[in-house]
Amino acid sequence: MAKFKLDEIDHQILDMLIDNTRVPFTDIAKKLLISAGTVHVRVKKMEDAGIIKGSSLTLDYKKLGYSFIAYIGVYLNNTSQTKFVLERINELPFVTVAHITTGKFNIFCKIRARNTAHAKDVIFMIDDIEGVYRTETMISLEESINDKKRLMHYIFKEL
Amino acid sequence: MAKFKLDEIDHQILDMLIDNTRVPFTDIAKKLLISAGTVHVRVKKMEDAGIIKGSSLTLDYKKLGYSFIAYIGVYLNNTSQTKFVLERINELPFVTVAHITTGKFNIFCKIRARNTAHAKDVIFMIDDIEGVYRTETMISLEESINDKKRLMHYIFKEL
Amino acid sequence: MAKFKLDEIDHQILDMLIDNTRVPFTDIAKKLLISAGTVHVRVKKMEDAGIIKGSSLTLDYKKLGYSFIAYIGVYLNNTSQTKFVLERINELPFVTVAHITTGKFNIFCKIRARNTAHAKDVIFMIDDIEGVYRTETMISLEESINDKKRLMHYIFKEL
Amino acid sequence: MAKFKLDEIDHQILDMLIDNTRVPFTDIAKKLLISAGTVHVRVKKMEDAGIIKGSSLTLDYKKLGYSFIAYIGVYLNNTSQTKFVLERINELPFVTVAHITTGKFNIFCKIRARNTAHAKDVIFMIDDIEGVYRTETMISLEESINDKKRLMHYIFKEL
Amino acid sequence: MAKFKLDEIDHQILDMLIDNTRVPFTDIAKKLLISAGTVHVRVKKMEDAGIIKGSSLTLDYKKLGYSFIAYIGVYLNNTSQTKFVLERINELPFVTVAHITTGKFNIFCKIRARNTAHAKDVIFMIDDIEGVYRTETMISLEESINDKKRLMHYIFKEL
Amino acid sequence: MAKFKLDEIDHQILDMLIDNTRVPFTDIAKKLLISAGTVHVRVKKMEDAGIIKGSSLTLDYKKLGYSFIAYIGVYLNNTSQTKFVLERINELPFVTVAHITTGKFNIFCKIRARNTAHAKDVIFMIDDIEGVYRTETMISLEESINDKKRLMHYIFKEL
Amino acid sequence: MAKFKLDEIDHQILDMLIDNTRVPFTDIAKKLLISAGTVHVRVKKMEDAGIIKGSSLTLDYKKLGYSFIAYIGVYLNNTSQTKFVLERINELPFVTVAHITTGKFNIFCKIRARNTAHAKDVIFMIDDIEGVYRTETMISLEESINDKKRLMHYIFKEL
Amino acid sequence: MAKFKLDEIDHQILDMLIDNTRVPFTDIAKKLLISAGTVHVRVKKMEDAGIIKGSSLTLDYKKLGYSFIAYIGVYLNNTSQTKFVLERINELPFVTVAHITTGKFNIFCKIRARNTAHAKDVIFMIDDIEGVYRTETMISLEESINDKKRLMHYIFKEL
Repeated sequence: MAKFKLDEIDHQILDMLIDNTRVPFTDIAKKLLISAGTVHVRVKKMEDAGIIKGSSLTLDYKKLGYSFIAYIGVYLNNTSQTKFVLERINELPFVTVAHITTGKFNIFCKIRARNTAHAKDVIFMIDDIEGVYRTETMISLEESINDKKRLMHYIFKEL
Repeated sequence: MAKFKLDEIDHQILDMLIDNTRVPFTDIAKKLLISAGTVHVRVKKMEDAGIIKGSSLTLDYKKLGYSFIAYIGVYLNNTSQTKFVLERINELPFVTVAHITTGKFNIFCKIRARNTAHAKDVIFMIDDIEGVYRTETMISLEESINDKKRLMHYIFKEL
Repeated sequence: MAKFKLDEIDHQILDMLIDNTRVPFTDIAKKLLISAGTVHVRVKKMEDAGIIKGSSLTLDYKKLGYSFIAYIGVYLNNTSQTKFVLERINELPFVTVAHITTGKFNIFCKIRARNTAHAKDVIFMIDDIEGVYRTETMISLEESINDKKRLMHYIFKEL
Repeated sequence: MAKFKLDEIDHQILDMLIDNTRVPFTDIAKKLLISAGTVHVRVKKMEDAGIIKGSSLTLDYKKLGYSFIAYIGVYLNNTSQTKFVLERINELPFVTVAHITTGKFNIFCKIRARNTAHAKDVIFMIDDIEGVYRTETMISLEESINDKKRLMHYIFKEL
Repeated sequence: MAKFKLDEIDHQILDMLIDNTRVPFTDIAKKLLISAGTVHVRVKKMEDAGIIKGSSLTLDYKKLGYSFIAYIGVYLNNTSQTKFVLERINELPFVTVAHITTGKFNIFCKIRARNTAHAKDVIFMIDDIEGVYRTETMISLEESINDKKRLMHYIFKEL
Repeated sequence: MAKFKLDEIDHQILDMLIDNTRVPFTDIAKKLLISAGTVHVRVKKMEDAGIIKGSSLTLDYKKLGYSFIAYIGVYLNNTSQTKFVLERINELPFVTVAHITTGKFNIFCKIRARNTAHAKDVIFMIDDIEGVYRTETMISLEESINDKKRLMHYIFKEL
Repeated sequence: MAKFKLDEIDHQILDMLIDNTRVPFTDIAKKLLISAGTVHVRVKKMEDAGIIKGSSLTLDYKKLGYSFIAYIGVYLNNTSQTKFVLERINELPFVTVAHITTGKFNIFCKIRARNTAHAKDVIFMIDDIEGVYRTETMISLEESINDKKRLMHYIFKEL
Repeated sequence: MAKFKLDEIDHQILDMLIDNTRVPFTDIAKKLLISAGTVHVRVKKMEDAGIIKGSSLTLDYKKLGYSFIAYIGVYLNNTSQTKFVLERINELPFVTVAHITTGKFNIFCKIRARNTAHAKDVIFMIDDIEGVYRTETMISLEESINDKKRLMHYIFKEL
């Protein structure tokens, strides 16, 4: 599991892209006193190495009518069904995260829904997947932190 | 809670940006048979309305040495301390998500760490926050799904 | 989900009916300085809009020999059976409330029974419904509050 | 705990009032082939004996903007605080039911709120009462049954 | 459920028998200043009424090699099997008490065994009964109180 | 922990006394073809050795108005308080059994009460003992087995 | 269960071997002022009596790439499968300890694995054993004590 | 965390020592067709590298009067006390293993005791450590597997 070696320039490029993925490479170049071509090459290299896997928009789900967040613990009849059930869960757009976990749950999901009634429908969709034994739901009353940028900055400072 | 009205053009612009936040506005314009200026105006309007809150890089945490993910349930001595504890938690870069939840936990967090020993340190940092009574940890054995794009596409198709 | 608009007069009428559903419309009219016909029209309108769904007697269950109250959490074999099981539960007069819930139970009921032995019979009736996997019972030692009037008055003051 | 003796006529009067508390006594009298005065006397007698404690409107909470229902289990620091805490809970109009219970909770409440954010506020109000140690919340996804009339009819048939 | 009426003399007779079931009736008679025949008649009457159901020796189980006590909670596949399973449990002499209970267990038993290994065998005997789904065991580290005499004396003082 | 040696005659004497503690020694003697004096000596010897600790009446608690049975798990603030709390519990006649246990409870009790309201009072008495942190109650719906005679006969057959 | 009698010399020999199983018998002999032959005879005798069952190397698992330790609670479908499941578990070298336990688990195991991903594989191997109903995992963040020598020395001092 | 490199000869030496730590180096040398000096050098090198940390006797605890095994989960008041509490636990010879763990316990221990009464004493010693909030005990009914040799052989085959 040999880690790709990033140098100081790579860190500074990532540091700028993390805050705004749409910042033009010429702006990055100007700030770091390097050529735009170098920025381009470096980013390409980090994409090829799989360190940068893509970029995503941060939307306001409340404004889009999806203000209900819940965590759902899934018990399976048998762990041999894990892969199959995850494929079915993956077909539900309302599940944004799913983990295989230690502890009492086999799979642990995060869902977003429009409201209580819609959340009930989503939970029932998961419950109805073949191999799912039972589910337990914990509802979010407030999403207080959802921010990976602090961690990214920390990692690049630390490296 | 009147929702901002997005029309078909807005949806198609968002649909393209979701897949790649760095796609040039001229490419979007060409594909949708509108002017690049229109794309710019529309995106600006959605940013002003707070629907687009920003963009973020999707990095490969394993390659960056942060392969350990855990969910931590936090019990407080008293819920009047919730705001104070969340501020302290917000100072830890390893906590990427935190919710106020129903059920047995007061606060529910997601952390990323380098390995088991580092996770122990992060858990102890949370445990040591004043007002935190106890924590319970559930460890991820595999992050099988982490993808908000499916939901975003679904929402824009549905609207 | 557009809400029916109630005006100040409606609120005052409801405020009086909440305390005593049998108060004559002429008394309400006199108090509010409007005609009895107006009261009649307003109440009719609120019934048609579904805001007033009916009225119920408040009886003293202890004096009627039904002093035993319990909450029963029901686990189903599969949530696809929820509707079927609720129909069976609905045939038991001793179940006065039933909810589909988050958390560990699929269905959560409130029952009233004559005594411990009778409660056992009611619990067994629920346990014997096809699709019910297990039940868990929590017994009330004292019903300290059972009063929706405070909430109703609050709502009409707030609107 | 000698029970008040109700005869067949009393049962039939109650049976009619249960379905509609506003039914005129003259209608009851006509149906049961007795005088309206007798109905009046009987009802008065049952009120004096405390069997009829009052009447209440059945409103549609969803239409009034209160569609969120939750059950909240309350742990106290010490049961000697039970009476004090119940008095504080009784000041919150959003709590419609509260029981002293066996099992892990000291007090078990039912609340109605406008939405998730409001429910969080109500839960925090309860959490902040002196003597309350912790609370656990179970959210209703659907109120499937809320009907005491079936039980009342059953009791009068049975007596 | 009309209770048999015991008078002061009955109470005093029971009070003496509770402390020593083998005390001669002539001793009781002398103490209470009544005839031995009266004692005999009274005791006979209480036996016929089913108040006195018998008597039992209090042995020292430790000295008999049975020092291991455990409580076992039994989950059934279905409560319709309760009667059948209790009959099977009743065939195991090591189970001295069994209750149908509220809460998470269907049946709750107390067992006495020779030691850890023997307790394992008894638990497995219960586990192997058809209809038993699972068991949970809680082991006694010390039997600190086992005394019904205080309650009996209390009842007779109170009556 | 050398065990007292009982011979075949002792076993047969105990076997008869277990079924009826009041059986006259002359009856036992006749049945076992030994002298009444021998029975007397043997019983005395077993009492002196502490094997027979006494005898108790088996009363019908339901007929005496004590039909409510519950098991109460007690959590202490600190196990150093165990002895003190057990002494306080021992002052409550309604507690007939108490154990120091493994698992989540520190002390586990069995109580008998008149009814739900009385049980609440007893539970509160235990809750109010200094050093008691919390209690959890499990209610008996039916006492199906309460019989140590089967075990005693088994032991004497086995020895 | 008569215990083999060890004398003072035996204790001293064991005390030396516990600290270093490879210490030459001549060294032990010199230290205890006895002949090497005596040491040999004594050790042989304790091996024959089964008191010494063997010896094992203490390796550093972290240096060997096995730094991940977890405890796994196993629920069986039925305890009659205990023996069969233990035989299957015994085929997995990663399980170093397994117990039949009281409480909620039927079998409780300790495993060592290379990392989180490997631990997932081991857990799935156990989950896939026929008769295993579910497993629950608790992960070690640090092995703070793993030392039987203190107990052995204590035992020999105490004997 | 660079791993020490072991070659095929090292593995074969360890494989022989694992089965019997007292096997003479000359026997190992003969079997592997190398000189005894080479064995000595290799073992010394592995000891210096910390791979071999020592050796221990495998004794039969039952024969030594220590047949009672329990797992004890420890809750702390605060994790900042972890180090202090582990030092206190380390003074108890009856605790042979202790881990800092994820999940509901802060520390998880394995103890060996003479019997139930002794286990109670050991549990109370742990409970009485300053900073320990509560403990929960799970008792072993049978130690079915306790064998690290299979894992060691597996590791050396795999390397």
